[in-house]
Amino acid sequence: MSDITDTQGTWLSEDELETVRARMPIVYVDAVPVRVDGLGYVTSIGLLLRATPDGSINREIVSGRILYGERVREALLRHLEKDLGPLALPRIPPSPQPFTVVEYFPDGEVSGFQDPRQHAVSLAYVVPIEGDCEPSQDALDLVWVSPDEAMSPGIQSEMGPGHAKLVRRALAHVGRLP
Amino acid sequence: MSDITDTQGTWLSEDELETVRARMPIVYVDAVPVRVDGLGYVTSIGLLLRATPDGSINREIVSGRILYGERVREALLRHLEKDLGPLALPRIPPSPQPFTVVEYFPDGEVSGFQDPRQHAVSLAYVVPIEGDCEPSQDALDLVWVSPDEAMSPGIQSEMGPGHAKLVRRALAHVGRLP
Amino acid sequence: MSDITDTQGTWLSEDELETVRARMPIVYVDAVPVRVDGLGYVTSIGLLLRATPDGSINREIVSGRILYGERVREALLRHLEKDLGPLALPRIPPSPQPFTVVEYFPDGEVSGFQDPRQHAVSLAYVVPIEGDCEPSQDALDLVWVSPDEAMSPGIQSEMGPGHAKLVRRALAHVGRLP
Amino acid sequence: MSDITDTQGTWLSEDELETVRARMPIVYVDAVPVRVDGLGYVTSIGLLLRATPDGSINREIVSGRILYGERVREALLRHLEKDLGPLALPRIPPSPQPFTVVEYFPDGEVSGFQDPRQHAVSLAYVVPIEGDCEPSQDALDLVWVSPDEAMSPGIQSEMGPGHAKLVRRALAHVGRLP
Repeated sequence: MSDITDTQGTWLSEDELETVRARMPIVYVDAVPVRVDGLGYVTSIGLLLRATPDGSINREIVSGRILYGERVREALLRHLEKDLGPLALPRIPPSPQPFTVVEYFPDGEVSGFQDPRQHAVSLAYVVPIEGDCEPSQDALDLVWVSPDEAMSPGIQSEMGPGHAKLVRRALAHVGRLP
Repeated sequence: MSDITDTQGTWLSEDELETVRARMPIVYVDAVPVRVDGLGYVTSIGLLLRATPDGSINREIVSGRILYGERVREALLRHLEKDLGPLALPRIPPSPQPFTVVEYFPDGEVSGFQDPRQHAVSLAYVVPIEGDCEPSQDALDLVWVSPDEAMSPGIQSEMGPGHAKLVRRALAHVGRLP
Repeated sequence: MSDITDTQGTWLSEDELETVRARMPIVYVDAVPVRVDGLGYVTSIGLLLRATPDGSINREIVSGRILYGERVREALLRHLEKDLGPLALPRIPPSPQPFTVVEYFPDGEVSGFQDPRQHAVSLAYVVPIEGDCEPSQDALDLVWVSPDEAMSPGIQSEMGPGHAKLVRRALAHVGRLP
Repeated sequence: MSDITDTQGTWLSEDELETVRARMPIVYVDAVPVRVDGLGYVTSIGLLLRATPDGSINREIVSGRILYGERVREALLRHLEKDLGPLALPRIPPSPQPFTVVEYFPDGEVSGFQDPRQHAVSLAYVVPIEGDCEPSQDALDLVWVSPDEAMSPGIQSEMGPGHAKLVRRALAHVGRLP
């Protein structure tokens, strides 16, 4: 979950961001990228492969901060294009209503969603992707898995407890939780 | 709200349908066709123009019955393609959760939604349309209007009280109710 | 899923109901009864114990038909009071938006939800129960289980695949899917 | 929209809050207090009467910041009890899914929701109130109005454009937008 930061103007420097992160909940968006068929039925879920600092591999959905002055929709599009590439053609949902709200805390016991850096309140959306993806930034790859595969213990464990739980909620919302 | 009926096999003849309509709630789907921009923001709403039996003009959204054995998604796609043409490319939402449920009764006082023929329970969805529309069947035309225009007294009155109210709910859901 | 039927007036006799069930989708409501704490957090789920014709025990949520002329809310209240008793004090949600729509088919392969008798389209709601429950009708007992217990293989298997899946979706919706 | 601030520990001083407000979106909750009947039908909406600095009267719903370390549910309960009194008995919804997300910007043109002090992202909920209300803090009174009254031009204008629009969205969500 990296962020574009801007030390000019109204955004925060990395130092300031650290300070605020210890004092205020930070607003995030989580996007579960999906492929759908002509009936809107979810056929697969896109998971980003990232190398973690300790050398293991993590599977992640798209996630990132909402910046000052930015609309929720703009943050969704920016993070999706940043992670999936400029030709991904994400279909941002017409309604601002998220399918769930996830609360990340430094202490994972509070809500079951942990972020050691901060208390984040994240609006979660399922976003159909219609274009071609080329994972950019620090992602090694993007892999599309079926709903059943996404629920397999192997892939669930590579996701980390937070994103694994969020993907289960997303599958339940679209009627694809096995 | 016309229906494809099939007197063979498991579907109902027109006569049987009349009898059932006086005894059972009928399951419907309502679809509000919208155009969205790249951020998913609703820019316009599609309204069908129909001539009513008494010669006046009615503006309508897409609406129709779910048939025996048919998935909700299939009913949505069938009615959208029937009314907007085979190249409309509707984006059926990934989740089965409707934004509202509308209850039509022969007596309009019960719920504010009237259907003289029947008690219908309708699942309502906002459906982005990406292709080219050519209204077919008994529709004279399809007109795209902005959210503000859709709320104007003139267009609201041409929609009839039920569809006018449903469009207002849809605009509220997508954050575009003025 | 038993129904009050009325052979007088506008409702259907059992024979007529059989005929219609083979021809038309039937509208249902499913209600997942829950206990919540002062923060609205779901602490337990109510499951009805029923003896099946073959002598085994089934765990079920509340489910039943919407009658002709009946509001969705009225059907929810009627089925909840019928199954949980007149002092259950269910808190019917203020919004008609269900958390999901479940489609039951005679062939369980179509949607993963089977009802041998009919094609039913069911609006599913999570309903907090505030009063005292005394299961009536054909239910042997009502048992409150925690979200974790509801997800245990033992209880899941006693629920049958359809209600088990629906309870998982309900837990995901309220943020309590483990 | 006043806040409990705490200069000790991890919360922000008023000065620090001012600085952050110019740099980061702040997370809020908006709660529309409602009275419901036994069927969950919304019969009235609670509006707080406040004196504004310029001496005029404002009608408002309940709104406030989520603090560091606080759950969304806890923030809802805290602000509702602060504004409606300790015996209000709000029924916080079982699901974390808000009915809409409202984005307040210093420039009201961006989203139609203005907050001169900050960019706030607010999760909005409809909350049934079951107890007795005694408006506390800086509110002069709490008035319950019917959905139709809430939509009257007089009351809409006393709400200010943001809260008026949010109440319209809430009424649409619960099926009570006239």
